[in-house]
Amino acid sequence: MNTTTSAAVFDAAYQGDRGAYSELAAIELLGGHARLLPSPTLEDVFASVASGRARHAVVPLENTIAGTVPGVYELLLSHDLQAVRETALAIDHVLIGPPGLPIGQVRRVLSHPVALGQCGAFLRRHPGMIPVATFDTAGAVRIVLDENDGMSAAIAGRHAADVHGGAILAEHLQDHPENWTRFGLLAGAGTGPAAHATKLLLVFDLPHQPGALAHALGAAAEANVNLTKIESRPITTRPFEYRFIVELSHPDPSTLDAVLRTLVGRTASLRVIGRFAAVSNQENRT
Amino acid sequence: MNTTTSAAVFDAAYQGDRGAYSELAAIELLGGHARLLPSPTLEDVFASVASGRARHAVVPLENTIAGTVPGVYELLLSHDLQAVRETALAIDHVLIGPPGLPIGQVRRVLSHPVALGQCGAFLRRHPGMIPVATFDTAGAVRIVLDENDGMSAAIAGRHAADVHGGAILAEHLQDHPENWTRFGLLAGAGTGPAAHATKLLLVFDLPHQPGALAHALGAAAEANVNLTKIESRPITTRPFEYRFIVELSHPDPSTLDAVLRTLVGRTASLRVIGRFAAVSNQENRT
Repeated sequence: MNTTTSAAVFDAAYQGDRGAYSELAAIELLGGHARLLPSPTLEDVFASVASGRARHAVVPLENTIAGTVPGVYELLLSHDLQAVRETALAIDHVLIGPPGLPIGQVRRVLSHPVALGQCGAFLRRHPGMIPVATFDTAGAVRIVLDENDGMSAAIAGRHAADVHGGAILAEHLQDHPENWTRFGLLAGAGTGPAAHATKLLLVFDLPHQPGALAHALGAAAEANVNLTKIESRPITTRPFEYRFIVELSHPDPSTLDAVLRTLVGRTASLRVIGRFAAVSNQENRT
Repeated sequence: MNTTTSAAVFDAAYQGDRGAYSELAAIELLGGHARLLPSPTLEDVFASVASGRARHAVVPLENTIAGTVPGVYELLLSHDLQAVRETALAIDHVLIGPPGLPIGQVRRVLSHPVALGQCGAFLRRHPGMIPVATFDTAGAVRIVLDENDGMSAAIAGRHAADVHGGAILAEHLQDHPENWTRFGLLAGAGTGPAAHATKLLLVFDLPHQPGALAHALGAAAEANVNLTKIESRPITTRPFEYRFIVELSHPDPSTLDAVLRTLVGRTASLRVIGRFAAVSNQENRT
């Protein structure tokens, strides 16, 4: 524990208003007594950990429907944080309004554009409800409760209704029932790896030769290690070159360490950006 | 050409308001005389092509900073469209206001959350400007010009200022100068492959055996074919299983066809979702 983290005022920063899905993930990851810092943007979340104001960041990594959360891996690559734990939340959108507002009076529905997009069938069934974009789902709930204009509701998680005292007008709004988001708990560079880490999150560049990626992934295949994520990203400063974000999973941490050593020899540069145990509520889904 | 496409009223649908980056991409892809249909959501864009109202869709595929555009590959997988051409646009955000508004009076800055996030340094230098989320960049321009409230401006591309008659108050607002978005031209299932296609966009599932991905990618490596994108996506109906979106590039179309035949034998299921020539303005970047 270094002096920066011990001076931290908050246990974790997260993006969004009070009641956001990220807040719920932070409570799952750190417990109900954690001191949490709501933050307007993901950039602010990373900055709070870098400055020592918050000890951890809780950030969404990927959603089963919308895919990787825009910008989050770029922030991971440009900051010296490590993913040390993860959790997966079922994303179950509800329509939230001021207590007493009948659903038939709703003319405006506020939420984050991704959440509005995930509720397309609901909005098409209610053509009188005009969608309005906001920065985050829970912030939309706060706005409709503060304004209380007799015609506005918000799409967010049930947790946002609990936190802000809103009434639930309709539930299970999302088009796809299997809507999950994985959240990572990120810690500053001083933090050691999680005990018994069974997942490894890596970013690497490859040497310029054909088959370099197949050769690198072969290191995992030869050790029977599962690849649970792979994503190429253009390197902005080097057109036509790519880096790869890869997540490996294996029940035996020493097998992962051995694959890591092999991978170092098969890549041009490699950085570990996360080491954590596989999440328990994802396991419940099997 | 089947009857559905010949009855189309529009040459292409795109997401966003008049003046959106997607409109500019559609003009690059189809020419300045194309009849274009602005659409509120990506879902609407795909629906317009499915119903025959528009012959093509023009959709953003990935951005060098923010990564893959949320939801677009899921829509490609759930519709029977094919990418037949691509283009890459430099994303150069400017601040647009009603003509005559001095930048010192701007108190609200409207734009899409991703665009606002890409202009973080500019917004931090101007703490008096409060960011406000909208569905799309060009729609934000239309709102600030319509309202003309003496305190609101929008972040969008220069093209949106031209289309709506706005004044440019500041330019080059984005944090990263190398900010590019690739757009795809999608056509209905009746369309044949582009002549001399040098890029192949595929989605495949793998057999359940260790090393299946390395073996599949070996098919490309053995033929010296470049991998220009790879992305794993959870299969929502089968927890812990993944499909892969892969883009291959080679100057000789017959080499790509040979790799495709090999890949069919090394994957559990495979679908071609795009065949197109490499984009010329990306080549200009080398």
